[in-house]
Amino acid sequence: PAPWLESEVPVMSMHIQDPASQRLTWNKPPKSVLVVKKIQDASLLQPFKELCVFLTEKNMIVYVESKVLADTAIAGDESFGAVIQKFCTFREDLDDISNRVDFIICLGGDGTLLYASSLFQESVPPVMAFHLGSLGFLTPFKFDTYQSQVTQIIEGNTAIILRSRLRVRVVKKGIIMTNGDSEGSRKSMQYQVLNEVVVDRGPSSYLSNVDLFLDGHLITTVQGDGVIVSTPTGSTAYAVAAGASMIHPNVPAIMITPICPHSLSFRPIVVPAGVELKIMLSRDARNTAWVSFDGRKRQEICHGDSITITTSCFPVPSICFRDPVNDWFESLSQCLHWNVRKKQNYLSSEEEEF
Amino acid sequence: PAPWLESEVPVMSMHIQDPASQRLTWNKPPKSVLVVKKIQDASLLQPFKELCVFLTEKNMIVYVESKVLADTAIAGDESFGAVIQKFCTFREDLDDISNRVDFIICLGGDGTLLYASSLFQESVPPVMAFHLGSLGFLTPFKFDTYQSQVTQIIEGNTAIILRSRLRVRVVKKGIIMTNGDSEGSRKSMQYQVLNEVVVDRGPSSYLSNVDLFLDGHLITTVQGDGVIVSTPTGSTAYAVAAGASMIHPNVPAIMITPICPHSLSFRPIVVPAGVELKIMLSRDARNTAWVSFDGRKRQEICHGDSITITTSCFPVPSICFRDPVNDWFESLSQCLHWNVRKKQNYLSSEEEEF
Amino acid sequence: PAPWLESEVPVMSMHIQDPASQRLTWNKPPKSVLVVKKIQDASLLQPFKELCVFLTEKNMIVYVESKVLADTAIAGDESFGAVIQKFCTFREDLDDISNRVDFIICLGGDGTLLYASSLFQESVPPVMAFHLGSLGFLTPFKFDTYQSQVTQIIEGNTAIILRSRLRVRVVKKGIIMTNGDSEGSRKSMQYQVLNEVVVDRGPSSYLSNVDLFLDGHLITTVQGDGVIVSTPTGSTAYAVAAGASMIHPNVPAIMITPICPHSLSFRPIVVPAGVELKIMLSRDARNTAWVSFDGRKRQEICHGDSITITTSCFPVPSICFRDPVNDWFESLSQCLHWNVRKKQNYLSSEEEEF
Amino acid sequence: PAPWLESEVPVMSMHIQDPASQRLTWNKPPKSVLVVKKIQDASLLQPFKELCVFLTEKNMIVYVESKVLADTAIAGDESFGAVIQKFCTFREDLDDISNRVDFIICLGGDGTLLYASSLFQESVPPVMAFHLGSLGFLTPFKFDTYQSQVTQIIEGNTAIILRSRLRVRVVKKGIIMTNGDSEGSRKSMQYQVLNEVVVDRGPSSYLSNVDLFLDGHLITTVQGDGVIVSTPTGSTAYAVAAGASMIHPNVPAIMITPICPHSLSFRPIVVPAGVELKIMLSRDARNTAWVSFDGRKRQEICHGDSITITTSCFPVPSICFRDPVNDWFESLSQCLHWNVRKKQNYLSSEEEEF
Repeated sequence: PAPWLESEVPVMSMHIQDPASQRLTWNKPPKSVLVVKKIQDASLLQPFKELCVFLTEKNMIVYVESKVLADTAIAGDESFGAVIQKFCTFREDLDDISNRVDFIICLGGDGTLLYASSLFQESVPPVMAFHLGSLGFLTPFKFDTYQSQVTQIIEGNTAIILRSRLRVRVVKKGIIMTNGDSEGSRKSMQYQVLNEVVVDRGPSSYLSNVDLFLDGHLITTVQGDGVIVSTPTGSTAYAVAAGASMIHPNVPAIMITPICPHSLSFRPIVVPAGVELKIMLSRDARNTAWVSFDGRKRQEICHGDSITITTSCFPVPSICFRDPVNDWFESLSQCLHWNVRKKQNYLSSEEEEF
Repeated sequence: PAPWLESEVPVMSMHIQDPASQRLTWNKPPKSVLVVKKIQDASLLQPFKELCVFLTEKNMIVYVESKVLADTAIAGDESFGAVIQKFCTFREDLDDISNRVDFIICLGGDGTLLYASSLFQESVPPVMAFHLGSLGFLTPFKFDTYQSQVTQIIEGNTAIILRSRLRVRVVKKGIIMTNGDSEGSRKSMQYQVLNEVVVDRGPSSYLSNVDLFLDGHLITTVQGDGVIVSTPTGSTAYAVAAGASMIHPNVPAIMITPICPHSLSFRPIVVPAGVELKIMLSRDARNTAWVSFDGRKRQEICHGDSITITTSCFPVPSICFRDPVNDWFESLSQCLHWNVRKKQNYLSSEEEEF
Repeated sequence: PAPWLESEVPVMSMHIQDPASQRLTWNKPPKSVLVVKKIQDASLLQPFKELCVFLTEKNMIVYVESKVLADTAIAGDESFGAVIQKFCTFREDLDDISNRVDFIICLGGDGTLLYASSLFQESVPPVMAFHLGSLGFLTPFKFDTYQSQVTQIIEGNTAIILRSRLRVRVVKKGIIMTNGDSEGSRKSMQYQVLNEVVVDRGPSSYLSNVDLFLDGHLITTVQGDGVIVSTPTGSTAYAVAAGASMIHPNVPAIMITPICPHSLSFRPIVVPAGVELKIMLSRDARNTAWVSFDGRKRQEICHGDSITITTSCFPVPSICFRDPVNDWFESLSQCLHWNVRKKQNYLSSEEEEF
Repeated sequence: PAPWLESEVPVMSMHIQDPASQRLTWNKPPKSVLVVKKIQDASLLQPFKELCVFLTEKNMIVYVESKVLADTAIAGDESFGAVIQKFCTFREDLDDISNRVDFIICLGGDGTLLYASSLFQESVPPVMAFHLGSLGFLTPFKFDTYQSQVTQIIEGNTAIILRSRLRVRVVKKGIIMTNGDSEGSRKSMQYQVLNEVVVDRGPSSYLSNVDLFLDGHLITTVQGDGVIVSTPTGSTAYAVAAGASMIHPNVPAIMITPICPHSLSFRPIVVPAGVELKIMLSRDARNTAWVSFDGRKRQEICHGDSITITTSCFPVPSICFRDPVNDWFESLSQCLHWNVRKKQNYLSSEEEEF
């Protein structure tokens, strides 16, 4: 054999994993469940109550955020009082539930899952998400048959997809005066995002102007309305509206999509998961930029601040309705009307025979 | 810890490999080299001769395709005769050199590398590709300093990128009459492609109409000029002209891009490496389609024929000039003028201050 | 007033015509009607017969192409024989009906109207087009109520839209040997197209490479699969599949759209009606190109041949179902699913409130 | 002839005007000139002074905005004092110069011309625009040879292009309490825009949700970052960044381009000049929108407010460097790198011959 075949080159190292192979199994029966409900949506009240009754009858410990119970339609419902008594409640940003929940049930739309993701900065319990109304990309389950579906999850052995997240660090360059000295200090924050980090021009009417670094090298400067760094999961959210191709969530990659770029040739690019991206204002940027994380925690970015982004070690295990492939194509069709077309051959005159 | 953490869910299975980590090292010194030269290009003659002289002086066994030597400018050059004597020659499709070559040197453009790829249906030796003239996506080396560059390859320890290929099987449904019986028979061919498989309407003026299956499921029907199934390497070739996002070759994925699709919402998609795609004419297709493999071996596809595509186990190990990341962004800029822009803020009136 | 106001500059010359203002009125009652029917479509037989009976009862002279009557389902229908007796028949390319028809009725799809257009190289009678099945861009009428609709056309006073056509001249550079002399000769052909002229690479697997001139100036070179020069009517046909914006047929313009262009920055452009475009093979084109006219009359273009395109003086007067604006938006929605979307806010996480 | 030929249908009404035919000629010699200079740009000081000296030597009356003279580099330059003495100064929004200026000279970038446009709500004098630095779409003249160029303008007979503007009316629905009665009142403002009207979500992180009406009919609802209504001149500004095709300024049309739309099928559309568009918040819009006019006068739009847009009767006569066609293609190439490409055939493997 040729010498290089014996070298360290991993000749067949193409990482060819069957996306359908990942499955959820329990080591010991799950005991606690976090129920996430979109607030201020009256149509969700009845499903929420039904589900909670069902879960307590199954002897599950139910975690609910305090503000969900602030709704008088819930707190004031006497027939529901006994169930509420059993709830474990918590407050966002104050109470840490990260190691107390075995799995999560979301009611209400893709936003509930993004919210659930934000509650877990490290590992995330498996999530089962119901759409109430029409299908979302992240909410494959119909509520009609919730009892059998939830039971099956509890019993284990269902298909699961690990949705990668991005770990984002924002470092703010600030000035602190101590003991009469002027000293630069840096304040750092960290976020886990499931869809995307968006850097845009915010309320300003000037174009944003940011430098994009990859593994320490300046690769390009973005002039335009902004730039989206998204997971494959996020490729079908804001990125697709900005012109990106759509990436199946099992592809280990990060997508970079400009928003209304200055340049006709600024096509979106897809880079391998694991690279480190950094975004900073360009030196000649005339105004600041704004950053948000899954549409939340919007904040200003000034000269000297940096946003560092890489693939997180903590994906969101998302329970499939059927499997990762079928669920995705079902969502493309239902949510984005992907390749919906008239059967007739209206588009081209060439279709008519004479 | 929560029970699911102990389950079989591979919590941190995000495959985060450093693209820059792959390097070529030799187990024993390389002895044989295949030199691929674009034919019918006079500007390549001198570099080709120089390189061959250099390689023979280094005691390398040089493989050259017979038709390269058919060129009178080579065969008739007496001063080059002694070098030619030492060549090992072979004929495409007739002689198998698959286990006799330690590495490959290409002279002349991306096409030489596609051609070299087609010579190796199984594992491919590492390829070093020179551009003579302007940079190509697959040809990062300048010829000026070929001596030191080639020497460094021979000594080993250079950055390498494994470019995935697609394994394509075409099954033709044919009819053979034997002993008076009519019997369906199927003829099968297999190809390894580095850029893309293209299915289009060929010379027909009717739209093509093909069904696309993924792991056995019909996922969509393509009506339009055709469809491109490409590797990440191929995403910057025909696919980008058809509107695709550009994928770094280290991303384990397959890209599906429609060509002038019938439907406004038919955005390109990216699926994980390892899935199995199948393309067949739709039942109501009024005409046949045509398939080609890296732009070669064009053939007709009729009702009942199928094209099965998956990630190959045999990537092309491509030697980097610098590293996989820098080489790629250099190519985006040089070959596609990616995000080239005027520095002034001509695009928006908002840029002017008053 | 400032002196320039009195100059010859047509200060308010913006040609602001109300698209809804054009109406069909008859000087004297129409007497003859051409009925165009898609052939080889059994579903059209009954409507065709019904319509012809109706028209003859109205004492209209009905023109029908000979090959329509070649269909045995028509020729062999004895009950229809009396009607056939009254038909005026003609043969395409042989008989000239250009001044004998008062209006045209099309049955069957956009192709019937393109075909009808091709029969009239100069002025075109008003066309009423029925879709049998789903709506086309050029076929706004439903057949259900054909009697009242046709009656209304005959009585006059209906909204009409003048769809501009392109006049295309193809000049072939040929060589004729006469009396032993070699002499260049040029053969010229002319076409009127309603949708588009397409120049593409045909069966070749090489990119096409053509020069585009505007009013005698070389404006760009097209490298790619080809180029589409279309009317506003054609902007919603092949051009939209190739990425063009969609232009209302009342805009006096010509659209130029590259097909899978070599260059990321080759965005489609829209130029004023009345300019003269010319397309020729580039000097360094390695292969020929092919041209077609509304998907018909496909022919090869060689070095030295030229295709000259300008707005025709002979538009197609197309009878509206409602009016030019409503008909167009109805078609965008029905034929292209333009801006069809899920009402829920699935696309952005930002839509969910927490 | 067929009766319809004699009808009122304007058979050959295709408005085929030669874009190159419009020329500037003076009825009597121009006497007054407005010089517009970008402020806060030191590189413009010297050209500005030179030009003003030149114009006063030509006995032209020079109009300059007061704030230009507020710059100490101008006001404090004693050698320039005599020239300043002769200036006619005015203040934006306070002094009306609309009938006092024969032509306009702009120094500094596309923004200067947009600004000049905003000073003239009715007819606009001819504008000659110099780029200092690189070419803009609206600034075709190089300053090097300003003397001969300006002299030629004054002498008349130069090519001119009439750039259409949009007349925009914003009607705010307000509530005024008078004498104890609650009464709706409406405040109306009007703008002339040369590039575009932009309606976007402003600082909000919710999608905008606006209804678009054409001649009184609801044609679609825009969900996304916003919508751009632009002139052909504006098609190469923000609209092109949002994905629009590019329209030559001689085409009488209005372009509607969504910004990052919710729907994959929301392609930009081009409608005839002269239609009336209206934009209002959708009934179910959860937040307000923001509107700006050529990037200026940004303001909030609330439920019940309306923005009415149509082609203005007052175009901007823009003096050409060569002619409307050549100037435009020169700008496409210089400003947008339109169809810039590598000459080599890197894009497709099919280009290589073997």
